[in-house]
Amino acid sequence: MKAAVIEQPGLENLKIKDLPVPEPGPGEVLVRLRAAALNYRDRLTVEGGYGSRQRHENLIPLGDGAGEVTALGPGASRFEVGDRVTLSFFPDWTGGPPTEARFETSLGGRIDGTAAEYRALPEHALVPTPDYLSDIEAATLPCAGVTAWSAVISQGGVGPGDVVVVQGTGGVALFALQFAKMAGAEVIQTSSSDLKLARVTELGADHGINYAAEPEWGVKARELNRGRGVDHVVELGGAATLKQSFRAIRVGGTISMIGVLGGPRVELLVPLVVTRNIRLQGVTVGSREQLETMMRAMALHRIRPVVDRVFPLDELAQGIDYLASGQHFGKVAIEI
Amino acid sequence: MKAAVIEQPGLENLKIKDLPVPEPGPGEVLVRLRAAALNYRDRLTVEGGYGSRQRHENLIPLGDGAGEVTALGPGASRFEVGDRVTLSFFPDWTGGPPTEARFETSLGGRIDGTAAEYRALPEHALVPTPDYLSDIEAATLPCAGVTAWSAVISQGGVGPGDVVVVQGTGGVALFALQFAKMAGAEVIQTSSSDLKLARVTELGADHGINYAAEPEWGVKARELNRGRGVDHVVELGGAATLKQSFRAIRVGGTISMIGVLGGPRVELLVPLVVTRNIRLQGVTVGSREQLETMMRAMALHRIRPVVDRVFPLDELAQGIDYLASGQHFGKVAIEI
Amino acid sequence: MKAAVIEQPGLENLKIKDLPVPEPGPGEVLVRLRAAALNYRDRLTVEGGYGSRQRHENLIPLGDGAGEVTALGPGASRFEVGDRVTLSFFPDWTGGPPTEARFETSLGGRIDGTAAEYRALPEHALVPTPDYLSDIEAATLPCAGVTAWSAVISQGGVGPGDVVVVQGTGGVALFALQFAKMAGAEVIQTSSSDLKLARVTELGADHGINYAAEPEWGVKARELNRGRGVDHVVELGGAATLKQSFRAIRVGGTISMIGVLGGPRVELLVPLVVTRNIRLQGVTVGSREQLETMMRAMALHRIRPVVDRVFPLDELAQGIDYLASGQHFGKVAIEI
Amino acid sequence: MKAAVIEQPGLENLKIKDLPVPEPGPGEVLVRLRAAALNYRDRLTVEGGYGSRQRHENLIPLGDGAGEVTALGPGASRFEVGDRVTLSFFPDWTGGPPTEARFETSLGGRIDGTAAEYRALPEHALVPTPDYLSDIEAATLPCAGVTAWSAVISQGGVGPGDVVVVQGTGGVALFALQFAKMAGAEVIQTSSSDLKLARVTELGADHGINYAAEPEWGVKARELNRGRGVDHVVELGGAATLKQSFRAIRVGGTISMIGVLGGPRVELLVPLVVTRNIRLQGVTVGSREQLETMMRAMALHRIRPVVDRVFPLDELAQGIDYLASGQHFGKVAIEI
Repeated sequence: MKAAVIEQPGLENLKIKDLPVPEPGPGEVLVRLRAAALNYRDRLTVEGGYGSRQRHENLIPLGDGAGEVTALGPGASRFEVGDRVTLSFFPDWTGGPPTEARFETSLGGRIDGTAAEYRALPEHALVPTPDYLSDIEAATLPCAGVTAWSAVISQGGVGPGDVVVVQGTGGVALFALQFAKMAGAEVIQTSSSDLKLARVTELGADHGINYAAEPEWGVKARELNRGRGVDHVVELGGAATLKQSFRAIRVGGTISMIGVLGGPRVELLVPLVVTRNIRLQGVTVGSREQLETMMRAMALHRIRPVVDRVFPLDELAQGIDYLASGQHFGKVAIEI
Repeated sequence: MKAAVIEQPGLENLKIKDLPVPEPGPGEVLVRLRAAALNYRDRLTVEGGYGSRQRHENLIPLGDGAGEVTALGPGASRFEVGDRVTLSFFPDWTGGPPTEARFETSLGGRIDGTAAEYRALPEHALVPTPDYLSDIEAATLPCAGVTAWSAVISQGGVGPGDVVVVQGTGGVALFALQFAKMAGAEVIQTSSSDLKLARVTELGADHGINYAAEPEWGVKARELNRGRGVDHVVELGGAATLKQSFRAIRVGGTISMIGVLGGPRVELLVPLVVTRNIRLQGVTVGSREQLETMMRAMALHRIRPVVDRVFPLDELAQGIDYLASGQHFGKVAIEI
Repeated sequence: MKAAVIEQPGLENLKIKDLPVPEPGPGEVLVRLRAAALNYRDRLTVEGGYGSRQRHENLIPLGDGAGEVTALGPGASRFEVGDRVTLSFFPDWTGGPPTEARFETSLGGRIDGTAAEYRALPEHALVPTPDYLSDIEAATLPCAGVTAWSAVISQGGVGPGDVVVVQGTGGVALFALQFAKMAGAEVIQTSSSDLKLARVTELGADHGINYAAEPEWGVKARELNRGRGVDHVVELGGAATLKQSFRAIRVGGTISMIGVLGGPRVELLVPLVVTRNIRLQGVTVGSREQLETMMRAMALHRIRPVVDRVFPLDELAQGIDYLASGQHFGKVAIEI
Repeated sequence: MKAAVIEQPGLENLKIKDLPVPEPGPGEVLVRLRAAALNYRDRLTVEGGYGSRQRHENLIPLGDGAGEVTALGPGASRFEVGDRVTLSFFPDWTGGPPTEARFETSLGGRIDGTAAEYRALPEHALVPTPDYLSDIEAATLPCAGVTAWSAVISQGGVGPGDVVVVQGTGGVALFALQFAKMAGAEVIQTSSSDLKLARVTELGADHGINYAAEPEWGVKARELNRGRGVDHVVELGGAATLKQSFRAIRVGGTISMIGVLGGPRVELLVPLVVTRNIRLQGVTVGSREQLETMMRAMALHRIRPVVDRVFPLDELAQGIDYLASGQHFGKVAIEI
């Protein structure tokens, strides 16, 4: 089978190779992958920058994938051959709260990922793909979709009438927008591009702020909310944006910490956190159960992921470069 | 001023009288009421059937009202003369969880209600009326609206993708439908009238079940949900419906107990509650803070209450009779 | 190996037989059981009264067990031979909220239970036995212990200063007392025996009420709480006790529904539930994760289960009769 | 009456003056204060460093107080003359979640505080003092006690078996220790003094770590918890300690942000927060309802605040200096 392999850290060491098709062991199923998707984290793993959370030699990268079941290992009974399936990002986190053990393995991190034609996986790591979604669309859900779901819904508890700021227009950001609207919230989206802001308005955003034109966008967000402050910020920029998030947030509000595009180290003014009763909540994808619940909600509302561009597996390196360029709007996917 | 007064229990003892306009005391404001609304509970209070929760002589009935501020008592500062305001059902329950003390007074229960041209009330018992709503519309919110909000949102925690059964098409039922849709849920509504079911579909219900034609509607609801069982039932029928609610509900689901139209005494099969991990949650209107949060969500979605019919204050008795007849679809209101 | 088998419903059909030792399959381990424990539910299963939740022919009964690992099936890696282990009541409910699928199998229900010398079980169905507990003590935890833990802690959220009524002195009741005290609550225990009330006081109960002497014990409980009403009732009696539980409970309080010793059908006065904002919460044991969390808490406080009496496996029928007699104080266990 | 007044920012401008006894207005009561207590925040207000949260001229400082009711204003009915009362830190935050409006006024911040013989306050800003506590003891509760209660119980949700790290031995720290133990948790306390560690052990701490001897105390805390990581950190040091808190905390754990003794600006490594699913929760004292609930729990367990030293009102400046010296163990109080 064809697979992409990082022989050692460095995008230049990403090779397309021919490997043997794996055998499904007890309780496993063999999946013919048809699609994968890229996340910011995959840029880190190809560079070896994910530390102890990844294998550093001969790793098949990528954490998102979808395809169909082609064989069952001994004792596997949740699926049948031919079933369309989507993979859960943390194969062993089926449900319950996050724990060290449940984070232990992640696809394309400590264990091989989805940039390959076949993967043998525990059947508990898979969910049925909703009929209305293509494999490419389904493949965008496990990491970015579930991250947005955790941030906005399962950890965030956003509900009708809440005001949510979503930063940017990448994969997580557009899911966060779609989910916040689905939950009845008012969404303020930020971007440096008026063109992208026009597109998020079509997707349902109530307000757009161009942060290039309006560097004090946190103040602007607060004004849009008649001075009350927003209930929730989906924080994707890290060092570059946190200060404005604090300007925007209301007393008692929540800032979901997800991304570090603007740098990993931020200076936190503790008295602000304390005297305004702010909650900063780190978000780490989610369980298979969250993936299933999210898919049920998406299917009810016939929500489609925004796929910006699809690269063939052979051009995975170009795909990763494209993601790094920041031009995308929504998800970048891989056809296998 | 004109006011309706129950001199002693019995609808025949409901008199329209001329009373002095009250003076606002310290921290109070005087409200010129323009609209009130009727609830099932008001039928009980005119008959004296609300036990220790009501005054039994010379009570001005009704718990819902809206109008405008015409005078301020000493120290009152939250409103100005001319402000449009809606009254909170429990004047002294401003926020926090329910307690005996917060239930102590309710408009048209232990203290005088809204069937009068003027009422002097603590300023903390009022909220600004949203601009887009008429006084008649606003007056339908404090009891039925907040009850539905508590059941579905603040106590129920209904969110995107959840499946909710709402019984009937009265005031609480239609609010519950509107709020469940606003929160991203799938709604199954029951009624004995195909005409009314057609109307709830227009309001957003995903499915309607005519329980006259389909007495085992709980089984049907479960089928509509592909056998999983529904997440939440807004239980308004009591004795007549609870058995079917148990058929419909999923393991771990919630039944919000609100109404007793089908009789106050129900037989509960405890092993079902236990082995299916069911939660039965009594719902008792809510606080001023819940009223405000609900109004903010409604305003964002420009949700309008369904007003079935409006009676003038002089015809309050006819209005109560009409409500008792069960012909209404949504709320019955009173113009003052 | 020696095992107890219900060939068909009826305690008289409970036979001690010699069966082959099972082989652990993939992901399974073989456990040499040293102890089991009895629950009210086991009385029902031997009589075939557990309906679709149980197998009705040739069932090895009992849901509680502890022992040691004697062999590992292929791929099993969580335990080593010789490890002391306790079994989780629902082998496939490892974590997360209750679902139909997670209730599907229970030991001694739809699948064989613990009244046998050996059982091969998925390794995810086991937890390490805390060092300070004997096998007999550990065997009392999975059903009665976790049920009390769910009722009081994970579903009940009882905390410091809360007032909890616990009914009776059976297995669940004594765990509920121990856990409520561990969480900082005040406990009012009911019993018909002054002797048993003296013993619960030694275990930490703050107050005892003899319901034989004080049939209106709900009123008494409310008085002990200076009229505020209690926060939580652990309801074990069903029809015989629910009315008094409603007298005792405060506005907004929770009644955990667990037992039906006084009869399965109760009459519920819906207006009480509604106007007092009561929550009735069914409790269905819990997940392996809850068992682990409970054990960690118990180990910290060196809490020992109260074991009333131990029968050898050969006398299982007598043990079940003894449990049915209601003489016990705490748990009845089986030595294997 | 005698009162301390900060005429303008600077401890040297703190004067003991003779002022007229205030008159209780509508809904107010007059309290003869007998005791007050000092908090770190009071050091800031006397220096004018509390920004827009305080009045900068002629402020009576201090937020904590207790005494007895000596007169009732018009309409006041919750208390009688002679009742012993404790003041709530935010007079207008009676219940519900934190909001900007509820933080608007705080005693000794935007409005006059408790360093005076008399204060007229809204009756809703007071709670009855438990009989078993002296006025000095009661006066230590509203700010430091409620802050610890929010951190550990109402926001923190600490329960039986949880492991909590508490930093230091100041007022909040000792309350946090007492409350975490009351809730059944295991407590690891840090201090730079072995003598103080010996005293916290007497108060119930399970482990003490001398951070002077053990600068990597976060690693040590994790070891004490057998590598699992602790569930909760009560973070009082800010810049000086947050890095170690991250070493100690488990995946999915909570760090309560309260203090800034080690400096207000901390560097946060966002990837740690994200990939470990950490929650950082700012804590801002709490409502009157939380004060009442905390007092009920304390009364049940007969918990006494640790009072390190009491200064007379005339020596308020010395008291503030003493607090700043960091020698105290528990609370520093003022006798009035």
